[in-house]
Amino acid sequence: MTATVLPEAPATIRFLQTPSSEAWLEQALANFEIVLLDHSHCERKAAGVALSLISRYPSDAKLVRTLTAIAREELEHFEQVNSLLEAQGIPLQALPAPPYAAGLHKAIRRTEPDRLLDQLLVAALIEARSHERLGLLAAHLPDAAIAGFYRALMASEARHFGAYWLLAVERFPRSQVDKRLQELATLESQLLSNLHPQPRVHS
Amino acid sequence: MTATVLPEAPATIRFLQTPSSEAWLEQALANFEIVLLDHSHCERKAAGVALSLISRYPSDAKLVRTLTAIAREELEHFEQVNSLLEAQGIPLQALPAPPYAAGLHKAIRRTEPDRLLDQLLVAALIEARSHERLGLLAAHLPDAAIAGFYRALMASEARHFGAYWLLAVERFPRSQVDKRLQELATLESQLLSNLHPQPRVHS
Repeated sequence: MTATVLPEAPATIRFLQTPSSEAWLEQALANFEIVLLDHSHCERKAAGVALSLISRYPSDAKLVRTLTAIAREELEHFEQVNSLLEAQGIPLQALPAPPYAAGLHKAIRRTEPDRLLDQLLVAALIEARSHERLGLLAAHLPDAAIAGFYRALMASEARHFGAYWLLAVERFPRSQVDKRLQELATLESQLLSNLHPQPRVHS
Repeated sequence: MTATVLPEAPATIRFLQTPSSEAWLEQALANFEIVLLDHSHCERKAAGVALSLISRYPSDAKLVRTLTAIAREELEHFEQVNSLLEAQGIPLQALPAPPYAAGLHKAIRRTEPDRLLDQLLVAALIEARSHERLGLLAAHLPDAAIAGFYRALMASEARHFGAYWLLAVERFPRSQVDKRLQELATLESQLLSNLHPQPRVHS
């Protein structure tokens, strides 16, 4: 599917160093209401990440254009997930984040241009993992309507992953992108190697 | 126009204590390229304000729904203004903000529930002023296409003003909203009483 959506990006899943565990899938399916609520927060945060990159690199027209489209799409998904929560009678509420995103953000180097590269690749990896996990949920959720919704979202996450990756390879030498992506992907898999006790999209 | 869009909100302009000066309009028309660039930043920042309120009050479903719609609309305008900049050959770039928004944010009280009330009213006032000023630009810009674009945006700003005001009166006693709005509107007019030397939407 990735190949038809964004031909230039590598296959999303190949890109993650370790697939999600059975334990995560079992935890998520057994606690789907909490995962759905966490998913709402993930969409809002993803829009916030795109918006903060836009404000940090305001003169990079291609980056601004790409990330505005992504932020708009994430907000649309946020709205859709919130409607689904409402339909399921699950009230919106705060939810402590798992250590995943904070662990990745700690690895972002502080000086430019490394900082830009790291931010793009961390965002790409989070989107890639979301793509993988929403796909697992789509394949295993018993409710056909919700599973269908997740299949539709999956395609977007793959496009977002590809878009962040493309912004990176357009701005940095390919060898540098590959090397840093491998380092960050190693960290990303490590952060998920012990299942977080609270069920989350990225537990 | 406000009356048909959002019947419950008071007329936007009546709401501002002082109309914008002739001096501002002259400055803006004489430096329209800079004002258009600043307008792009204003739309992005407005989306950011809505998004940060959503993340601060995640369990207020009505607030989340209203502000998600506003954030989506602001991002759409951001995209439209950026297209207009591109069509005019004006490159995207950073632009120092005038003291206006920071001056208003300083007046936001730190403890809840005052903080929520102040945030909603400050956002409402900024939208109301944007509505007034985009209206002035729409009426005076020599380029008919750009003037038409500004007329369309004006209607949105009025709706946003009304939406923030409504969130306030739904959550706080009307007398408290009226009193605080008057105080903040006084400050808002004071902040614009001396024309900022750099041409901006809120100079």
